[in-house]
Amino acid sequence: MTPDRILHHFPLDPASRQVRLALGEKRLAFTEQTVRYWERPKELVSLNASGLTPVLTEGPLVLCESRAILDHLEETYPEPALLGREPAERAEARRLLQWFDRKFDYEVGGFILHEKMEKRLLGLGAPDLASLRQGREALRGHMLYIDSLLADRDWLAGTRLSLADFAAAAHLSVIDYFGDVPWADFQAVKTWYMKLKSRPAFRPLLADRWPGLAPAPHYDDLDF
Amino acid sequence: MTPDRILHHFPLDPASRQVRLALGEKRLAFTEQTVRYWERPKELVSLNASGLTPVLTEGPLVLCESRAILDHLEETYPEPALLGREPAERAEARRLLQWFDRKFDYEVGGFILHEKMEKRLLGLGAPDLASLRQGREALRGHMLYIDSLLADRDWLAGTRLSLADFAAAAHLSVIDYFGDVPWADFQAVKTWYMKLKSRPAFRPLLADRWPGLAPAPHYDDLDF
Repeated sequence: MTPDRILHHFPLDPASRQVRLALGEKRLAFTEQTVRYWERPKELVSLNASGLTPVLTEGPLVLCESRAILDHLEETYPEPALLGREPAERAEARRLLQWFDRKFDYEVGGFILHEKMEKRLLGLGAPDLASLRQGREALRGHMLYIDSLLADRDWLAGTRLSLADFAAAAHLSVIDYFGDVPWADFQAVKTWYMKLKSRPAFRPLLADRWPGLAPAPHYDDLDF
Repeated sequence: MTPDRILHHFPLDPASRQVRLALGEKRLAFTEQTVRYWERPKELVSLNASGLTPVLTEGPLVLCESRAILDHLEETYPEPALLGREPAERAEARRLLQWFDRKFDYEVGGFILHEKMEKRLLGLGAPDLASLRQGREALRGHMLYIDSLLADRDWLAGTRLSLADFAAAAHLSVIDYFGDVPWADFQAVKTWYMKLKSRPAFRPLLADRWPGLAPAPHYDDLDF
């Protein structure tokens, strides 16, 4: 019996995207509920006191935010495994999850997405160019780092696709929606991202559009 | 056979403290290596590219930062269980881990610890009083939230001690080192914290001292 599964999410939220990718990869059906989290909708806040997305409900079970959701999915629906099976593989995937959810989010998303997305959603005026520049510089550092990982690995955490790839791709894909990823200078990263973009689980993300926020022309192009 | 276990940590880092509490509760022996992470020591950066603490090595296995370490400990040394056994218990513990590691850290630690600790360690001058005030106001909100959880629970995530308690206590304990927790106004939270403070796993944290940073007089008092 399939539990009644509802994902409360915002399409351009990197944490929500990670969960959509994991659900897609594990072929778990779900109903979507798009939430404007910045308006603190009552239903969302009653499910998750922090007021943040994503929230996944499975029948009576309420799972708040990506860590709890991804770990639950991995424990409950172990195939395909998205964290690796050996302690060293799992440790590496989790290290990179933290890297993207904390360091990348803070150093890149906190500038580029704040300036280009949050300010628009909240009506806070035009992007600050110095902040954008700071985010873009940090992004180049992260692209270099991903590039260095891919020099001797097929996927970010090793030989297998893992949540580390989904975390990186989820964060990068929102930046890419706004056209800020310097793909041309990082061919290995581009090839890795093309592989991810071609997966069926990625398709719904490429169809995302938000009123008033137009994506870059190449955003949904598989051969960009 | 016990693996050779080394914890690279900074005593007043809340993430490091969570790991020390979990290691202590699971009675896992380890060697300590105190690192001045803000100086980006080579050994730390070669273990963890982000340069952050904590890092735990177990023989050849390198575990970077609290998420990877705590999940590894839970998977490898399941007794005593610190995440709960049922999906709902685990989801609640993980929700609260995220709450303290992200929301509390950002809203409270990012102000109080930045002003009182990081500025001292980095030689950045005197604390900014407006920032301190902002952190203290946010802290009162978090104390109220912990208080509301404890109204019908023995421990933060439910009926059993879990990593959620360790996360909350680790973050609060560093703020408490600097004397900024308004215990007198939150008796239920104080009682919960006293129970944690009395556990053997907590003792090493109460003995922590850092040169130039004196703890509040009640810091190591079990009956404060």
